[in-house]
Amino acid sequence: MNHFFKVKTLEDVMGMVGRFSAMPTETVTLPQASGRILGQDIVAHQDLPGFRRSTMDGYAVQSAATFGASEANPAWLKVAGTIAMGETPCFSLTSDEAAPISTGGMLPDGADSVVMVEHTEAVDAATVEIYKSVAPLQHVVDSAEDYRQGQEILKAGTRIRPQESGVLAALGKTHVTVFKQTTVAIISTGDEIVPVEETPAPGRIRDMNSHTLAGLISEAGAIPLQLGIVKDNRDDLFDACSRAVAMADMVLISGGSSVGMRDFTVEVLSDLVDTELLVHGISISPGKPTILARSGNKPVWGLPGHVVSAMVVFKVVVLPFLRKRMGENAWASPGALLPAILTRNVASAQGRTDFIRVAIQEKEGHLYAAPVLGKSGLIRTMVMAQGLVEIGENVEGLDKGAVVNVRCM
Amino acid sequence: MNHFFKVKTLEDVMGMVGRFSAMPTETVTLPQASGRILGQDIVAHQDLPGFRRSTMDGYAVQSAATFGASEANPAWLKVAGTIAMGETPCFSLTSDEAAPISTGGMLPDGADSVVMVEHTEAVDAATVEIYKSVAPLQHVVDSAEDYRQGQEILKAGTRIRPQESGVLAALGKTHVTVFKQTTVAIISTGDEIVPVEETPAPGRIRDMNSHTLAGLISEAGAIPLQLGIVKDNRDDLFDACSRAVAMADMVLISGGSSVGMRDFTVEVLSDLVDTELLVHGISISPGKPTILARSGNKPVWGLPGHVVSAMVVFKVVVLPFLRKRMGENAWASPGALLPAILTRNVASAQGRTDFIRVAIQEKEGHLYAAPVLGKSGLIRTMVMAQGLVEIGENVEGLDKGAVVNVRCM
Repeated sequence: MNHFFKVKTLEDVMGMVGRFSAMPTETVTLPQASGRILGQDIVAHQDLPGFRRSTMDGYAVQSAATFGASEANPAWLKVAGTIAMGETPCFSLTSDEAAPISTGGMLPDGADSVVMVEHTEAVDAATVEIYKSVAPLQHVVDSAEDYRQGQEILKAGTRIRPQESGVLAALGKTHVTVFKQTTVAIISTGDEIVPVEETPAPGRIRDMNSHTLAGLISEAGAIPLQLGIVKDNRDDLFDACSRAVAMADMVLISGGSSVGMRDFTVEVLSDLVDTELLVHGISISPGKPTILARSGNKPVWGLPGHVVSAMVVFKVVVLPFLRKRMGENAWASPGALLPAILTRNVASAQGRTDFIRVAIQEKEGHLYAAPVLGKSGLIRTMVMAQGLVEIGENVEGLDKGAVVNVRCM
Repeated sequence: MNHFFKVKTLEDVMGMVGRFSAMPTETVTLPQASGRILGQDIVAHQDLPGFRRSTMDGYAVQSAATFGASEANPAWLKVAGTIAMGETPCFSLTSDEAAPISTGGMLPDGADSVVMVEHTEAVDAATVEIYKSVAPLQHVVDSAEDYRQGQEILKAGTRIRPQESGVLAALGKTHVTVFKQTTVAIISTGDEIVPVEETPAPGRIRDMNSHTLAGLISEAGAIPLQLGIVKDNRDDLFDACSRAVAMADMVLISGGSSVGMRDFTVEVLSDLVDTELLVHGISISPGKPTILARSGNKPVWGLPGHVVSAMVVFKVVVLPFLRKRMGENAWASPGALLPAILTRNVASAQGRTDFIRVAIQEKEGHLYAAPVLGKSGLIRTMVMAQGLVEIGENVEGLDKGAVVNVRCM
């Protein structure tokens, strides 16, 4: 093992995302596809809505027949047949005719627009007065106005939001090809860690990292597999990691913040199947003692044991790798960054990227980011925080009053 | 039925959230509680971490023994017993002693701080040189530094994020009381609507709203129940609504944008069990023809049929009611509002609150909100959009270059 493995910058590490490829795809039902990552390009095989459709209650007309119409000088039109919702009108409309139509109804051949009912008056069953002119296609959605046949609608790698579910429904996609759900195994290590159901003896603490990491994995749309706690023992850790790599698409090992344990984890990761040590230390704080190995196409992470450090590393380093594996095109996006005003000076060491926890406060219409200070072993600091602020490696610190971009969490 | 039922403002409608109470609570396992709403206050029944813990690899010492220590003038200390991870040291430390300790280890009685290993040199097995002084509690998390016994940690109504799962784990909460998951029934109405698996005849379209609304409900953390499509028929709609109210905690009826259908929906809602019509029209655009009734403790909504209108009404009106029912304290929060620069002028009618769809674009470090224009029947406009911008009822419009707050979606 090389003890002089060079600490990598955050940028270096992000450059390694490309070494991992996306999950295979599978076909699921449309409701199951909600929130998943699309695994196919979607092209419209038909026009949408597919017919000329009214957006108002009123009368379908030829717009030219209404030109110049006003309260003082209404246009008189003959009432043609009635248009039933969901039916094709069985008649064509001539220039001196109007046909009553409801919102969502199909315009008859010959009609190009709809006069709102408020601007009409039925004189008798056969005649209607029109008080306002309409332009061609007014109060109408045209046949291909939403999407035209052959048009590319969605690209593979898009997250299926509610509106994407809607357009897939409109196109009759009862089944959709999506990337398979990524499973992420979590192993907690440390002789001092006990399961949640145990009362820790003095000197021991309950396993927080398995639960914080499981929550983060679920939030990202992947599936956490909690594999439990492994003692500080090379053979046990090797067995647990081998099992994890075999069963999951990514592995997180948390704990082992002591130098001895880190060396130990590196050794174990170096002995896995088809393995390569990619990262041994990142110039970020918290989170420096982070390890990344590749076993086949699977990223295997050694995360710091401190609960805050492990969460921060997940948010800023692990998540893009997870998104890439999940098939998401926008894997590099940190999500919405909320601008807020820093409430106090924050110092930062040059040569490393710092992530500070902040509480977001609203005062008189302005958002403020109040640094939450405290050691990275204190879960309290994350409970009090709503976000992280990045301080770049070439920045010495940030001044009170500076506008910072908060990564929400 | 009162045809002159007054259109309500958005504020009026929000004032009605208090008429509905939260779901009952239930007890689930800690992993199941992830993302749910806490149904009990959590008080620390113990100190956390519960013992004095090292945050570094090094030597546990009495800090006073290191005062004045430097490279030139190191402090010489005797090496006391070794501290095994997860064990209570079986010795106390005197002022001339130091004990090797790993990150996470428990300090022996008598020790109040840790010297980092980098600032020490083992002279022999029995003696260590200390090159740097430490302050009391330096490189240590004290016994009650995270939480003190008796301290209130979390309030009922809090959404359980990953960090809240962590603190619940630390306290040994294998089971947690949360609000029951809210079920929301969705009914699509309209003779022109066909299920996704059907090829629509001319004049008909596939059911988008059931799918967009199901996605929005899932995103909110509730459970959608798609009850299918009901034809424009009073008896069928009454039967479907009665069934929905019996089985779900909230009901969404979408469609019926024609005046006739709206009257019809109001009639049906007025005939439900223990019912009261609360809202018949809201001064928002899109979304004016929105209906809200209370059947027992269950909100029953008549949403507009246009796919964009139904989504917007869900985001800005229905969601706070849903969150209140889910037990969430922050039900009124629209979530993170992202400031962005408007790329063009947008006009707005006074006397109503407008919601415009915007695409978010980043250019040279600035975020821009580009209005997505188009009729509210076009799902395309939602696929192109990443957010909504609210234009207040007393505002005539917004100018290009104005900073607007985008509600992401």
